[in-house]
Amino acid sequence: MADYRAPLKDINFALFDVLKYADHYAKNQLDMIDQETTESVIEQAAKFAENVLVPLNAVGDQEGCKWDDGVVTTPTGFKEAYQQFIEAGWPSMTHHEEFGGQGLPSSLGTVLNEIVGSANWAWGMYPGLSHGCMETLFTHGTDEQKATYLPPLVSGQWTGTMCLTEPHCGTDLGMLRTKAEPQADGSYSLTGTKIFISAGEHDMSDNIVHIVLARLPDAPAGTKGISLFIVPKFLAKEDGQVGERNAVNCGALEEKMGIHGNATCVLNFDGATGYLIGQANKGLACMFTFMNTARLGTALQGLAHTELGYQKSLDYARERLQMRSLTGAKNPEGPADPIIVHPDVRRMLLTQKALAEGGRMLAYFAAQQLDVTKYSTDDAAKAHADQLLSLLTPIAKAFMTETGFEASSLAMQCFGGHGYIREWGVEQNMRDSRIAMLYEGTTGVQALDLLGRKVLGTQGETLKVFTKLIYKFCQANVDNESLKEFVEPLTSHNKEWGELTMHIGLTALENADEVGAASVDYLMYSGYIALAYFWALAAETAQQKLDSGDGDADFYKAKLATAQFYFQRILPRTRTHHDCIKSGVGNLMALSSDQFSF
Amino acid sequence: MADYRAPLKDINFALFDVLKYADHYAKNQLDMIDQETTESVIEQAAKFAENVLVPLNAVGDQEGCKWDDGVVTTPTGFKEAYQQFIEAGWPSMTHHEEFGGQGLPSSLGTVLNEIVGSANWAWGMYPGLSHGCMETLFTHGTDEQKATYLPPLVSGQWTGTMCLTEPHCGTDLGMLRTKAEPQADGSYSLTGTKIFISAGEHDMSDNIVHIVLARLPDAPAGTKGISLFIVPKFLAKEDGQVGERNAVNCGALEEKMGIHGNATCVLNFDGATGYLIGQANKGLACMFTFMNTARLGTALQGLAHTELGYQKSLDYARERLQMRSLTGAKNPEGPADPIIVHPDVRRMLLTQKALAEGGRMLAYFAAQQLDVTKYSTDDAAKAHADQLLSLLTPIAKAFMTETGFEASSLAMQCFGGHGYIREWGVEQNMRDSRIAMLYEGTTGVQALDLLGRKVLGTQGETLKVFTKLIYKFCQANVDNESLKEFVEPLTSHNKEWGELTMHIGLTALENADEVGAASVDYLMYSGYIALAYFWALAAETAQQKLDSGDGDADFYKAKLATAQFYFQRILPRTRTHHDCIKSGVGNLMALSSDQFSF
Repeated sequence: MADYRAPLKDINFALFDVLKYADHYAKNQLDMIDQETTESVIEQAAKFAENVLVPLNAVGDQEGCKWDDGVVTTPTGFKEAYQQFIEAGWPSMTHHEEFGGQGLPSSLGTVLNEIVGSANWAWGMYPGLSHGCMETLFTHGTDEQKATYLPPLVSGQWTGTMCLTEPHCGTDLGMLRTKAEPQADGSYSLTGTKIFISAGEHDMSDNIVHIVLARLPDAPAGTKGISLFIVPKFLAKEDGQVGERNAVNCGALEEKMGIHGNATCVLNFDGATGYLIGQANKGLACMFTFMNTARLGTALQGLAHTELGYQKSLDYARERLQMRSLTGAKNPEGPADPIIVHPDVRRMLLTQKALAEGGRMLAYFAAQQLDVTKYSTDDAAKAHADQLLSLLTPIAKAFMTETGFEASSLAMQCFGGHGYIREWGVEQNMRDSRIAMLYEGTTGVQALDLLGRKVLGTQGETLKVFTKLIYKFCQANVDNESLKEFVEPLTSHNKEWGELTMHIGLTALENADEVGAASVDYLMYSGYIALAYFWALAAETAQQKLDSGDGDADFYKAKLATAQFYFQRILPRTRTHHDCIKSGVGNLMALSSDQFSF
Repeated sequence: MADYRAPLKDINFALFDVLKYADHYAKNQLDMIDQETTESVIEQAAKFAENVLVPLNAVGDQEGCKWDDGVVTTPTGFKEAYQQFIEAGWPSMTHHEEFGGQGLPSSLGTVLNEIVGSANWAWGMYPGLSHGCMETLFTHGTDEQKATYLPPLVSGQWTGTMCLTEPHCGTDLGMLRTKAEPQADGSYSLTGTKIFISAGEHDMSDNIVHIVLARLPDAPAGTKGISLFIVPKFLAKEDGQVGERNAVNCGALEEKMGIHGNATCVLNFDGATGYLIGQANKGLACMFTFMNTARLGTALQGLAHTELGYQKSLDYARERLQMRSLTGAKNPEGPADPIIVHPDVRRMLLTQKALAEGGRMLAYFAAQQLDVTKYSTDDAAKAHADQLLSLLTPIAKAFMTETGFEASSLAMQCFGGHGYIREWGVEQNMRDSRIAMLYEGTTGVQALDLLGRKVLGTQGETLKVFTKLIYKFCQANVDNESLKEFVEPLTSHNKEWGELTMHIGLTALENADEVGAASVDYLMYSGYIALAYFWALAAETAQQKLDSGDGDADFYKAKLATAQFYFQRILPRTRTHHDCIKSGVGNLMALSSDQFSF
């Protein structure tokens, strides 16, 4: 049974060859790190993930978390692995030195999260959730709040959560009911029920810092009356130690399809003590800091399950002997050929491979933009990166998780009936992957964010920032014969993308529902073009390496062949999305609610 | 929480309005039954499924089957439900009167299996597997074998299985190793291990009749050395009662992703007594009788999960209040609008609806052809039906299970995060549905059967039988303005289908791998066109009903609107499959096995 091994060569190719991370570091005051150090950090992360986290992946799925009167016990080994993770200093890697962090680029955290998440997504969620909590505190907290909560969160001694969802509202946060009553000492008393709180209660850290959305007594209705509060499981004492137990308790764990190793909690706030972060009634805006980070983090989940499924199914396809190649035996001494000789098995493997490597480039490119917004001193560069990030975040989140689920299913399909059985781990991989299309905003929510807010909401300006990059690449390579097969379709798709956007914008002026009708097809369409751009970049890079005679020719040839596969067998999916978008809203709105069934 | 209700109005529309089952009965010596009786039988089946099987669906998933030293216990209530099923005479419905059957049309069994399977697929597999076992005995058994085994199987007192797969071979049955040694008394002694045997051991029936593939000692290697044996769990005594326990034992149950209510067994044959069915070394040919039935049965699984998921998500979409319609509040008194107002939720619901109702027409059409091959006295009609069935079986099996899985995932998506939680039943529905793309021949195996054997293997003759039907329909409606939006794209797709087939046939002359490279895209492409034909038929029927003023106008308007949705939002998927097929085998074969990873 194949276990996950971090694909170091692919990771480094994406970072340093395609996306020129060495230049990126140099340009953005990130000279505390160079290519060699980065590679060595990544290697250490890979060792930890492979040796410590991989063996716990199936354990987490099979044992799950246990609830006993509010106390949650994580699966065997989870707590000890977390202790090792802290001791090695991983939680603090990308955080500010002021609070005990190592100050390394946030993009390096993306690579760490990919590797940890591919090894064991459910485990990775415990430190993963802390990350967004820290971002929110760092951006919106008072100096005192930062001094109190950030050091133990940065060191990993404490973990964090985000408490948004209530039983009657998830997407529609304007409906939330949790109340925060001001107390005489300046704190608040929180009462209400939150559900679906990942890592909401567990035994891995000394304390858990909940960031909670709630309403003040005089708050306006809807989203304009939401405030943000810090509610620690144990109140913090002045010396930084944990004090009194707060009135926030885990009422139950959800029974889920997958990610059983992570505790998904119902949290009851029964007059729990909380502290306002940021301004009253401005909580939702503050939340977006957290949510964008979380969305990019969830995009990595799509990549993680794609990579893990790919590795497992590739290994199986090389070993499993079944039938003969239609063009003559390829393993004549054996009783049958390995199934990797069959074109349809290759189609399934290459789809996974093209999506994994393409998704990785997209994720690392987004991480690069995040670095620029954080570390650059050039305001124009920051604004540019911010626009790219705002466009690419919903695409990365929804496109990578949708294709991640598809890839996890293809991995299973390569195993035939064996894939449906627990022992190979591909059915767990598929169950684990499915949540990523739902949490942190469903695909539908991301699609409305992309098309409604990011694209049409800026009159297409945000989109143009990205299509211009593509246009420049295509122009620069217009006479490059060896890249013709990529540049030509990329050019025409890029042009069509703009036209299609214009078309939707015009129809939406007549009927606002045109936006919702087009949105998910538009998001997927955009994702396929974005990946085409990165695959074209990869092809250009690989071709240059081959031309120069540098490095492992087989590796670069494989990149070119995968780029060809992507352009010939994945990119044509835009044809269907294009036609569906063009079909308009009419075919969706014809039926009354009653006419859906008789 | 919505429970399954058999969609009687849709079922009857497909049978009697679209597919003219009353004429079909009259033409095929099936005058023992008419529309009224059929409707009443279906209503009884619906009552049984809704009252007895629906409540056991989640129980089966959560309890699973228990193994204790070879003894398998099914989930609480399964055995009692099966007793009621037998008492009501359901197992015998479509079987020959000679063996205690009721002699009703086999197509009625399709409707029964759809309803039972939608209510509780894992339960339905116990009687479902018997069906194919009976077909094999009926077609290939000796008179004595039929007299011994058919009556208790027909009555349901005994159940049956099919034992093909071994640990090292599933698709590639030529590799199987189970041995059958001839004994002095004319019986055989079977030794070997079979895996993935659904309903292989359980506590629901008095005896289990295994149909087992094995090799005689002098058998040629490969598929030409496979024979078929009857191996009963208990040997049959002359009086028809069960006798001595045979040496076939359940060594373990598989831990699976879903269908936990069904026992998936490892069966050990340790010198078990067996009896040859049919000729020695001709077992694989006999098997195809069984496998075709099983494949059509599995196609229904796609329909079952699509329908169940649709009902659950529709109900949720009507109840769940979240956000406002972009075109203004539709439920102004409530805190938010029901999510069915949102175009993207409608897209997900309509996709499920169009696939469920379209798949149902395809399944009932195939069942009609099966009736003709069984009951018609017109040799030309039988040959015609046999060709249609041979073409449509792999399409129905693979296309309906692939889209069934997609639909089950869309059902979950309508629930947002709640869909991932056990309580709503949509995550079970999705887990249960996933096996259907694997067992009874994976999608890849069906696709090779379709393109290689059925289509190219007959120089396109089999395909033409179906495309001619479509052509005739289009010609008959060429001037029908109200059907223009269906007839025009159907005409062009039908023409393209032939051209694309010719194209693949030509490239395959150069390189046999072109068949495998095109196969799955070709199968899905074919499925979308087949469903377009049935949706066009449904539109024609609905339009006629509306023109005549007969019946429930809202119902027929909904059919027309769903047909429009299908043509505008589902049929465009052929564009992508078309382009992928045209891209050829080159992009799949470029990499050596080693180059898939570095």
